Amino acid sequence: MCQLLGMNCNVPTDICFSFAGFQARGGATDVHADGWGIAFFEGRGVRVFLDPQPSASSPVAELVRSYPIRSLNVIAHIRKATQGQVTLDNTHPFQRELWGSYWIFAHNGNLLDYAPHFDGRFLPVGSTDSESAFCDLLQHLAAEFPDGPPPAEALFAALRRLAIRIGAHGPFNFLLSNGEYLFAHCSTKLTYIIRQAPFATAHLSDQDLSVDFSRLTTPADRVAVIATAPLTDNEVWHAIPPGTLLAFRHGAIETLGEATTIAGNPAAGAGSV
Amino acid sequence: MCQLLGMNCNVPTDICFSFAGFQARGGATDVHADGWGIAFFEGRGVRVFLDPQPSASSPVAELVRSYPIRSLNVIAHIRKATQGQVTLDNTHPFQRELWGSYWIFAHNGNLLDYAPHFDGRFLPVGSTDSESAFCDLLQHLAAEFPDGPPPAEALFAALRRLAIRIGAHGPFNFLLSNGEYLFAHCSTKLTYIIRQAPFATAHLSDQDLSVDFSRLTTPADRVAVIATAPLTDNEVWHAIPPGTLLAFRHGAIETLGEATTIAGNPAAGAGSV
Repeated sequence: MCQLLGMNCNVPTDICFSFAGFQARGGATDVHADGWGIAFFEGRGVRVFLDPQPSASSPVAELVRSYPIRSLNVIAHIRKATQGQVTLDNTHPFQRELWGSYWIFAHNGNLLDYAPHFDGRFLPVGSTDSESAFCDLLQHLAAEFPDGPPPAEALFAALRRLAIRIGAHGPFNFLLSNGEYLFAHCSTKLTYIIRQAPFATAHLSDQDLSVDFSRLTTPADRVAVIATAPLTDNEVWHAIPPGTLLAFRHGAIETLGEATTIAGNPAAGAGSV
Repeated sequence: MCQLLGMNCNVPTDICFSFAGFQARGGATDVHADGWGIAFFEGRGVRVFLDPQPSASSPVAELVRSYPIRSLNVIAHIRKATQGQVTLDNTHPFQRELWGSYWIFAHNGNLLDYAPHFDGRFLPVGSTDSESAFCDLLQHLAAEFPDGPPPAEALFAALRRLAIRIGAHGPFNFLLSNGEYLFAHCSTKLTYIIRQAPFATAHLSDQDLSVDFSRLTTPADRVAVIATAPLTDNEVWHAIPPGTLLAFRHGAIETLGEATTIAGNPAAGAGSV
């Protein structure tokens, strides 16, 4: 299995602090040593850094950790291979273009007996179940909305249906972004935190590193961080209930349909941190 | 206008030496300061490093220059903006997937009165003529060969027709690769060199840096380097005649149709260095 990290903000923010803890899990404090990757949306563009080496010892990860790239939407992944060899083409996150926007996808899980029929519009390049699921998702979105991006509510409803269908094959925790929304689907394990004023000091679980966010932010800033497991040990992270798709935008959870209202789970409300 | 750099080899080779000279042209020894990018194919995968900053001062370029990534096919680009703002989404090279392979494209030139009709299969994300041309190329390839990649000769013939059609709008020097072939189209200016045994010492034009290739290679190695302008000042580079499409594979020019046989130009033959 793998680990996911996502960030969605209302002002461009760098992910250096969170990435430092996440990077350590790639071969140092945890076993996810089969490559890693990170994608930063900047305006309509996206930069994807990929490395089939363990993130804990990757020179590219060292650059990402020390070079602040400010972004509204970030998706990162460290891999413990279940299906597919440890090669660059099997390294998450994956990238495609749909409706004139880039889409980025990373998956934590393992899909069994899953062989989607592809019509050729989106084809996997590597051999992971994850890239197949991404192509399957995009193929169905393109077919359902051939004239361009639908309203956010319709997009959300379609993604939720697809997540349920594909998730029937096994754990299907994923992060997906088109640069505007960051969609987070919890199938078995995914947590999040929303940091906003008043900001405090956070301390990493995986390294003895703290940051005082109040010195780096303005009162209007809002940052959602989504991760397979909490990255800090002195903040309250919220477990996303299995079977839930959340849409993050501007650092908050946006209600785009029934599915975001999770009965009996106050943690799922926006601004609940 | 911009500058192009490509490398195509028969064994995975790093491009650190050539990139050092190329990087200097991005804001130091030349005016191409509007961003840069480089794509490395590794197996079926590809890594694209993009930076809207000048390459001469980019921390990402510094990483690429010092971290040897070995690849059979590399495409790099430094930009002097003619159309489209200096933003990440307008930074070359561009990436798409077709027939289950990644395709990478970079362009030097300026296309005027060029507004291709897109059917939606490939859409530009940014606002450059270059990305439009790439989408136009891929859309026509996908439509002409809907069942998957055609034989190399048919692919070459189609690319040549498309290069002529799009090139009617203005200078259309480009590098295009699917990880197997590196296609180089000269519309106005493009040069190449094929380095093979016996290897000698090369000296950069843009920096006082030399490398003795005989110490870094085996006698079977063969490396083609394609660049807008020669990168070294003590080797013979071959100007590609305007109106020519060349297909490089395994570090040599492969004859895939009449168009690669350039009458009266002995430089176009493989192994002519």
